[in-house]
Amino acid sequence: MGYTYEYPHPAVTVDVIVFTVAEEARLEVLLIRRAQYPFEGMWAMPGGFVGIDESLKRAAWRELKEETGVRAASLQQLGAFGHPDRDPRERIITVVYYSAIPYGELRFRADSDAADAALFDVAALPRLAADHNMIIGRAVERLRQQGADLSFALRFLPGTFTMAEYRSAAVCVLGRPLDKRNFGRKVRHGGWIEATGEHRNSAGHRPAALYR
Amino acid sequence: MGYTYEYPHPAVTVDVIVFTVAEEARLEVLLIRRAQYPFEGMWAMPGGFVGIDESLKRAAWRELKEETGVRAASLQQLGAFGHPDRDPRERIITVVYYSAIPYGELRFRADSDAADAALFDVAALPRLAADHNMIIGRAVERLRQQGADLSFALRFLPGTFTMAEYRSAAVCVLGRPLDKRNFGRKVRHGGWIEATGEHRNSAGHRPAALYR
Repeated sequence: MGYTYEYPHPAVTVDVIVFTVAEEARLEVLLIRRAQYPFEGMWAMPGGFVGIDESLKRAAWRELKEETGVRAASLQQLGAFGHPDRDPRERIITVVYYSAIPYGELRFRADSDAADAALFDVAALPRLAADHNMIIGRAVERLRQQGADLSFALRFLPGTFTMAEYRSAAVCVLGRPLDKRNFGRKVRHGGWIEATGEHRNSAGHRPAALYR
Repeated sequence: MGYTYEYPHPAVTVDVIVFTVAEEARLEVLLIRRAQYPFEGMWAMPGGFVGIDESLKRAAWRELKEETGVRAASLQQLGAFGHPDRDPRERIITVVYYSAIPYGELRFRADSDAADAALFDVAALPRLAADHNMIIGRAVERLRQQGADLSFALRFLPGTFTMAEYRSAAVCVLGRPLDKRNFGRKVRHGGWIEATGEHRNSAGHRPAALYR
């Protein structure tokens, strides 16, 4: 029984970071609580082993769905992390993917070998399994870089949105304030959004123009 | 004899892309000609298997040195590539690193299991082993993105350089022309270079100011 190789082989896993922009413009990540050894009881990125005939991205999509029920419309690779001591079982190299999902479209539940699933503010993460704090830190850096292109924040928005919602998401991705006037001018000139012609009413405010 | 696992394990390799800016502002990569099965006789990125106790970056540094003699001062990860059919031997996932080395500092020779080593213009690559053409294409895209920050091109320059040499490297990294006046103004205001106070003479031209 088993698979034998002439040289030792590492195991390869995938882990997935689902980012969302929650209310009050908080950047949050979806984590699961591990039900099994190792790191049992600790929060971690959803993930698992890559099938021997499965592409890396397909494995990431499947593991995310199995453990949280989330079907990611797009996954970008962050990179491979492979410090020899990162897992107590054996040498495990993990390839990490991330996805931006609008808050209103994110439905999740704990499943498979996840005991629980929840959203966490990236600025206030608990101590996570293995090297997951470091990895999420790197992913946040990557997001900040990509956010310099203001069209990136649109990934966190639903089909239609107000300018205030857009700016709030962009601020959240960039991690720094954006001047209201400058932001409005830049994104209107950017050509990647258009006014729907409709407005949304909210109590105590002027109706806000909707964009898509 | 051998190493046995309950589940099948992929093999993991590292491959390294050394970029340099050659004369006439050509972006070039250092490739080796494979001496062994598979893809014997074909050009490929230098690389090889990751030791079971070796970090990914350390493996990349070692493989580059073993096959080409190049000691990379810095290596950045491009990402993991793991299509199930990319290698005829077994499932091999490769983690790719890249490095920018000034042309004048790049000394290489073929060694280990490399039959030959040479620089190739990225715009005119031959058909390479496995998926290496695709991977180098992705690395060039990454370089173009990083080149938007004009200080990135400095990695291709020696300790002191003329403004013309700097602009030439930046054009090469970005893959598009840069206005001479605008470029000079931007990088002088960027604060990441300074005049050395010295000049270089070249036949038929005015002496050019040197920067560092």
